Amino acid sequence: MAKHHPELSLLFHALADSTRRSILARLSERPARVTDLSEPTGLRLPTVMRHIAVLEEAGLIATSKDGRVRTCAIVPEALEPVRTWLDEQRATWEARLGRLDAFAMKAMRERSE
Amino acid sequence: MAKHHPELSLLFHALADSTRRSILARLSERPARVTDLSEPTGLRLPTVMRHIAVLEEAGLIATSKDGRVRTCAIVPEALEPVRTWLDEQRATWEARLGRLDAFAMKAMRERSE
Repeated sequence: MAKHHPELSLLFHALADSTRRSILARLSERPARVTDLSEPTGLRLPTVMRHIAVLEEAGLIATSKDGRVRTCAIVPEALEPVRTWLDEQRATWEARLGRLDAFAMKAMRERSE
Repeated sequence: MAKHHPELSLLFHALADSTRRSILARLSERPARVTDLSEPTGLRLPTVMRHIAVLEEAGLIATSKDGRVRTCAIVPEALEPVRTWLDEQRATWEARLGRLDAFAMKAMRERSE
């Protein structure tokens, strides 16, 4: 079985919440202050802060503080392990389909001989 | 902000566990009985069953029962929403980079005039 990837678990966990995915989608357009993320969603500030902490822990966003204002920005390369994992899954699956095709072709050839 | 996608939340939640990702990787190679998944990992059968239930609820695997033997198989197209979501994130991000490039180019042109 595959090795453990605690990083992937953190990423998938962070993405498993629609509010956090909305925050990421919003930050893909441009960086934003925490209050900018709170107002349009109607979410309370502590709730937004909690989601931001999960996203930051997974490395999906970075935050910086200027006085009392915290600004958030996405870290787009952070999604690469997710994409790599998906590609690996697909490669294994397609290799298996390839073997099944080869098997079916061989069976057909043998039958026609 | 983006619409809610409970399906995506279920998928990401199912993927946020290294044992479940290992089970998926194993099933990408070929379908397997629940006991086949239990033995090499040293996981107890009830634990494997619980993980299988989460994967099945997310639509990532399908199971069938023949007498007392339950067989599991992956549903490879189930990962498509994850891939689509990743592509959308990247498209938004790249569009933003494109706008930044255009802005920088315009600023450089204006400076050289």
